[in-house]
Amino acid sequence: MSLKYEQFKNHLQKVGDLKYAANVLHWDQEVYMPKNGAGPRAQQLATLSGVIHELSTDKKLGDLLAELRTDSTLTFEQKRNVEDAFDKYTKNLRYDVSFVQEMSMAVSEAFQSWNKAKEASDFSMFAPHLEKLVKLKRQETEILGYTDHPYDALLDQFEPKAKTADITALFEDVKSVMVDFVKEIAACPQNDDAFMSAHYDKDDQWDFGIELLTQMGYDFDSGRQDVSSHPFTTNFSATDVRVTTRINENDLNEMIWSCIHEGGHALYEQGLPTEEYGLAGGEYLSLGVHESQSRLWENNVGRGKSYWKANYASLKAKFPEALGNVSFDQFYRGMNIVKPSLIRTNADELTYHFHIIIRFEIEKALIEGSVEVNDLPALWNAKYKEYLDIDVPSDAMGVLQDIHWAHGGFGYFPTYSIGSFYAAQFYATAKEEIPGLEAEIEAGNMKPLLAWLREKVHAHGRIYTADELCERITGSKLNFSHFMTYARAKYSELYAMAPVSQEA
Amino acid sequence: MSLKYEQFKNHLQKVGDLKYAANVLHWDQEVYMPKNGAGPRAQQLATLSGVIHELSTDKKLGDLLAELRTDSTLTFEQKRNVEDAFDKYTKNLRYDVSFVQEMSMAVSEAFQSWNKAKEASDFSMFAPHLEKLVKLKRQETEILGYTDHPYDALLDQFEPKAKTADITALFEDVKSVMVDFVKEIAACPQNDDAFMSAHYDKDDQWDFGIELLTQMGYDFDSGRQDVSSHPFTTNFSATDVRVTTRINENDLNEMIWSCIHEGGHALYEQGLPTEEYGLAGGEYLSLGVHESQSRLWENNVGRGKSYWKANYASLKAKFPEALGNVSFDQFYRGMNIVKPSLIRTNADELTYHFHIIIRFEIEKALIEGSVEVNDLPALWNAKYKEYLDIDVPSDAMGVLQDIHWAHGGFGYFPTYSIGSFYAAQFYATAKEEIPGLEAEIEAGNMKPLLAWLREKVHAHGRIYTADELCERITGSKLNFSHFMTYARAKYSELYAMAPVSQEA
Repeated sequence: MSLKYEQFKNHLQKVGDLKYAANVLHWDQEVYMPKNGAGPRAQQLATLSGVIHELSTDKKLGDLLAELRTDSTLTFEQKRNVEDAFDKYTKNLRYDVSFVQEMSMAVSEAFQSWNKAKEASDFSMFAPHLEKLVKLKRQETEILGYTDHPYDALLDQFEPKAKTADITALFEDVKSVMVDFVKEIAACPQNDDAFMSAHYDKDDQWDFGIELLTQMGYDFDSGRQDVSSHPFTTNFSATDVRVTTRINENDLNEMIWSCIHEGGHALYEQGLPTEEYGLAGGEYLSLGVHESQSRLWENNVGRGKSYWKANYASLKAKFPEALGNVSFDQFYRGMNIVKPSLIRTNADELTYHFHIIIRFEIEKALIEGSVEVNDLPALWNAKYKEYLDIDVPSDAMGVLQDIHWAHGGFGYFPTYSIGSFYAAQFYATAKEEIPGLEAEIEAGNMKPLLAWLREKVHAHGRIYTADELCERITGSKLNFSHFMTYARAKYSELYAMAPVSQEA
Repeated sequence: MSLKYEQFKNHLQKVGDLKYAANVLHWDQEVYMPKNGAGPRAQQLATLSGVIHELSTDKKLGDLLAELRTDSTLTFEQKRNVEDAFDKYTKNLRYDVSFVQEMSMAVSEAFQSWNKAKEASDFSMFAPHLEKLVKLKRQETEILGYTDHPYDALLDQFEPKAKTADITALFEDVKSVMVDFVKEIAACPQNDDAFMSAHYDKDDQWDFGIELLTQMGYDFDSGRQDVSSHPFTTNFSATDVRVTTRINENDLNEMIWSCIHEGGHALYEQGLPTEEYGLAGGEYLSLGVHESQSRLWENNVGRGKSYWKANYASLKAKFPEALGNVSFDQFYRGMNIVKPSLIRTNADELTYHFHIIIRFEIEKALIEGSVEVNDLPALWNAKYKEYLDIDVPSDAMGVLQDIHWAHGGFGYFPTYSIGSFYAAQFYATAKEEIPGLEAEIEAGNMKPLLAWLREKVHAHGRIYTADELCERITGSKLNFSHFMTYARAKYSELYAMAPVSQEA
C-alpha cells in the first residue's frame, strides 16, 4: 500500500471513529437515555458533528485526494474508495460548520419534541421544530445544488444518483398497477388475522424474536437487541451492529416483522469487510440496497411459506393459547392479508408502497415550498382517504407515526420502495442460483441464502454503484416487473384469484 | 460576561461535550457492548482522546487564558475557573497526541484483557498489558514532572496537591491505630452475618436497590441504574448521571452497598451546577471529595442504626424467607461485622483501609520500579497474609479483583481512604448543624441531609481546593481523628467493648 493511500485510509478511519462514536450517542439517546439528558446530549452531538465536519473538510485530506486521484498504481477498489471519498469531500466543503451544527441541534430538538408530540398525539407541538428543519433542508438543497428539482439534492444523500423525476414516474407506474391489483384482492373472499391480536406475552415474544435473529445468522457476539419506540438498526463497526424491536402484547406483528426486518439490515452491516472500516468498501451502498436486505428477509423470506414451515411449530409452542386453534394455512394466510391500514411499519407488502408514495409526495411538496408544515395533518389525512380509503383518527396514528422527519431524513422514504423492488429482483436470482433454496429455508437452514447475500451484496460495500451491483447480480438494472411477478404469483394463490392472462 | 470569558466558556464546554461523549462510549463498553465490539471501540476512544487533547491544547485557548488571567473584572468564581483551566492547559501541553492515543489504546486493551483474565483467574493473561500500562505511567510521571516522588505526579491527577510522603505518613498512622483496634474487636464475642448469604432473588434485590436510591434523592429522570461486573458511576452532564450495580443472589451485601455507595457519588454529580457545565465550577473537586460523598452515604448513613430503622421492615418484607427470623438488632450487628476479608468492595469500613494501604504500597513500588509486574500476585498474597492474616485462593479473588489498574488508574486508590476520613469529618459537622438529623433519617427523610450536602459540597464544584472546602465546612483541614472517634463510638457499642479511656 502506498504511503499516501495509507495516510488517506488513516484519515478516513479517524472520521469513521467519530461518526461511529456519534452513533453510540444516538443509540443511547433512543434506547436508554433518561429524559433530562436530552439537552446536553443534543449539544454533545452538535459538537461531535462539528468536529467530524472539520475533519472531513481538512485540507490535508483534500491534498491527499488530489494526489491519489492521479495515482495509476492503485487497485480498482482503492480507486473507487478514493473517488467516493472525493465526492463526499467536495460535497462536505460546501457546508460551513455553523450550518452543520445548527442542523444537528435542530434534529436533536426535533427528535425530543416529536417523542412528546407523538405521546400527546398533537402535531402542533412538533410543527415549529419541523418547520425549522424544512427551512434548513431547503437551504441545504441550495448548498448542495441540483439541476432539475431541489429534492434531487436530498434524494442523492440516501440513494446516490436517483432523480425525483424518475421516482415520480416509477411511483405513477406502481400506483397504476397496484391500485387495480389491490382492488382485485379486495373483491376476493377475505382471510382472517384476528388471532394476531390475541394476548402474546412480552417476554415470550422477546425470546421468539431472539430465536428468529439467531436462525437468520445474526451474530450476537457482534451485536445486541434492545427495545425502542421505533425499531432501528445502527452500527459502530461491522462487529458491533445493534438492532431494536418494539413489542406489543396485543399485536404479534410488531415484534415479528421488526425483528426480521432489522435483522436483515444488521446482517448487511455485519457482512461488510472489517478491513475496509471507514472507507467506501467497508460501508453500505445506498439506503435502497440496505432496504433490499431487510425487505428480502422480511417479505421474500419471512412472509413466505417455507419460512413458517420452519418456524410455526416453535411459535405455536410458545403461544398455545393464542395459536392452538390456528392451522398453518390460517396463519400463513392471516400473516399475508392485504388490507389498507394506518401504520406504515405494520402494512402488508403491497399497500405498503402507498404509504411511501404519500410521504414522497408530501416531502417533494414541502421542499418545493408548495405546501406549509401547518397543513400537513390535513394533507396527510386527505391522501390516506384518497389512496387507501381510510380515515386517520389521530396525529399519532397519522402524520406523527414515523421518526424520519424528526431525524431530518427528507429523501429517505422512497428508498423503502426501491429496496423492496431490489429485494424481489435479487431474490428471483437467488432462487435460480441456490440449489433447493426454499427447501433449505423450510429446514430452518438460512446459511446458503446468507452466504449468497454475503458474496453478492455485503462483501462489496460501496465499491459499485447500485446500478452496477444490480447488473452484476441479476444481469439487468432495477426492474419493477420482478416485484409484480412475485406479488401476482403469491397473492393469486393466497386469494384464490383467477390466473393472470399472459397479455396482462 | 466579557466576550473573552464567553469564548473561554464555549471552548471548555466543547471539550466537555467530547469528554462526556467518551464517557458514553465507556459506559456502553462496560454495560452493554457485545464482545466483538471491543477492538473498534478501543480505536474509537483513542481517536476521541486525541481530538480532546488537540482541543485542550489549542493555542486559541492558551491565548484566551493568558488574557483572562490578567482580567481584574472577573468574579471570584470566574477567576477560579480560569486558574483551574490554566493549570490543566499547561499540564495538557506536556503531552503529545501520540502519547495520549497510545495510553488510551493501551487502557482499552488492558480493560478487555483484565475482563478475560479475571474470568479465567489467570494474572499472566493480564500481565503484559499491565506491564505496558506501568511503563506508560512511569513515562507519564516524567512528562508531568515531580519534586519528591514520581508517584506524586499520578496522585495529583486524582487528589490535587496530595503528596506521597504525606499519604505514607497518614497510612502509617492508620495502621498503628487500626491494627490494635481491629485486634480488640477480634477479642470480643463475635456477631453473626450468615443470613446475608441466604438466597436473595435477583429481581427483588434490584427493586430494593431502586427503592434505596429513590429514598436518597437520586433523580431517575436524570439518570438510570444498570448492571455491570464492577459497579461504577459515570456522568454525561449533571442531568444524566448513571450508576451500575452488581447483584449476587447469595450475598445481599454486593447490591446494597454498591447501590448506596454509587448513589452517593451520583448525588454529588446530580448536584453540580448545570450552568457551569464544562468549567471547574461544574465539575467534582477531587476523587477524595467524591469518595467522601459515597462513603458518607454508605457508611455514616447506610451502615447506621437510623437508616435501617427506616428500611429494615421493607427489606424484610421483600425477603421473608431469608430474614423472617433475623431481628433488627441481629441485622444491624451482622451488617457491621468487622472481619478481615478478600474483596475490597465487600470489606467492612475498618479493615477496608488495609485493602487501600496494600494497593498504595504496591503502586508506589511499581512506579518507583522497585517491584516487577510479574511478582504482583506473590507480593499481593504476602501482604494480605501480613496485614489481614488471610490466604488469597486465586488471582480473581486477589490481585485481579479491581478494575482500576486496567483503567490506568494509578494514584486512585488512596483517595478511597481519604474520602472515608473526609466523610467522617463532614458527617460530624452535619450532625451538629442539621436539627434532628438521625431522627429524620430514621423517618426515611433524607432531604435535610441531601440539602445540606448540596449547599456545603455539591454546589461549589471545583471552585475551592479540598483543604479550603473542608475548612469552610468543618472549620479545620482533614483530620483523621474524626474517623476514629466515629469508629470507636460505633464499634465499642457493637462489640460491647470497654469504654476507651481518655488518655488512649
